Amino acid sequence: MRISELSERSGIAVATIKYYLREGLLPPGERTGPNQASYGEQHLRRLRLVRALIEIGGLPLATVGEVLTAVDSPDLPMFKLLGVVQDSLTTPPSAASDAEWERAAATVEAEMARRGWDPHPSAPVADTLTSVLVRLAQLGYGDWGETVMPTYFDSARAIAENDVTTALAAGGRGDIVDAVVVMTVLGDTALAAIRRIAQAQVSLELLKNSGESPR
Amino acid sequence: MRISELSERSGIAVATIKYYLREGLLPPGERTGPNQASYGEQHLRRLRLVRALIEIGGLPLATVGEVLTAVDSPDLPMFKLLGVVQDSLTTPPSAASDAEWERAAATVEAEMARRGWDPHPSAPVADTLTSVLVRLAQLGYGDWGETVMPTYFDSARAIAENDVTTALAAGGRGDIVDAVVVMTVLGDTALAAIRRIAQAQVSLELLKNSGESPR
Repeated sequence: MRISELSERSGIAVATIKYYLREGLLPPGERTGPNQASYGEQHLRRLRLVRALIEIGGLPLATVGEVLTAVDSPDLPMFKLLGVVQDSLTTPPSAASDAEWERAAATVEAEMARRGWDPHPSAPVADTLTSVLVRLAQLGYGDWGETVMPTYFDSARAIAENDVTTALAAGGRGDIVDAVVVMTVLGDTALAAIRRIAQAQVSLELLKNSGESPR
Repeated sequence: MRISELSERSGIAVATIKYYLREGLLPPGERTGPNQASYGEQHLRRLRLVRALIEIGGLPLATVGEVLTAVDSPDLPMFKLLGVVQDSLTTPPSAASDAEWERAAATVEAEMARRGWDPHPSAPVADTLTSVLVRLAQLGYGDWGETVMPTYFDSARAIAENDVTTALAAGGRGDIVDAVVVMTVLGDTALAAIRRIAQAQVSLELLKNSGESPR
């Protein structure tokens, strides 16, 4: 298809597509004339992935380039590919004193070790979790690391099994990355919303049982 | 204690405390002289809650005022109080066509009805979830409403039971609201991080089982 049709089908302006081509985010089309090239379904799919990374993932273009380089490396194991996508979507943790940080990091490590989880590939996200525990401790909720987090770990495991199975079922390598990105980002929002719906339901049930009028 | 000590213990500048007093976010202290007032532990606790709402919840001051009005209404059932806190932390959903929206909303309603959950108190967060499902459908993942969401619902229920029990155990009314705010916001980040750690673990296990080198 010509670039005008690619633009129409993807909903992305021709000027933007040309910019992606210049930046190497989109591979060149097949030359069909001095000023014309032909594009295929793989270009449409790649455009969709770039859009998902920028619009949903909120990634800067340079990071999109890094993710795409990983996607295009045929020798990179799928596992490392998932890591590149995840790390690019991870927010860097905030600062804390050494003692606070070490205490929180020990809680995270203990929780993973107790489950036999490999601490190696989770380093960047584990730091995010550690910084949440630091903040909790600073706000006076230091015990939540032991009381609340185990349930989060168990539930997250069930969710992750579903996530990974669904993403791997998406098909080829580009499709999987697309699915991982969409699932990671939209899944966060979905899970947060469902958790709040469930919180409302649980408190409603508790209050009904306690005899207090729910509304 | 005097306002200078209140400032020291809370880490909030005297000028900011005076601003909160003028805006009615902090109740006045007990007058001890023409230009002096005495503040108690309840002022310190209230300051901490205001800070959590602003810094962690990212709420504008007007919304903080609404939440505090709910906290200070002794006749408001606990259940409604939780709703006010949750709704103040909910992002409004994005736009979608009527047909897309109704399809997604029907999926959310069906999932809740299947579990016997009361759809009534969850309206604003249910809209957030509906907008995620709309976006998923627009990206070609419309079937995730049926394949992925049920696990999210089951896991969120387990998490929410833990959340609510822990928050209610926090003590008095102000403490519970403080705990709900902190748990809602920091819980989102913690859960997102743990989910990613679990995704890494699950994909590592899958790849080990499939014989592919994990690294």
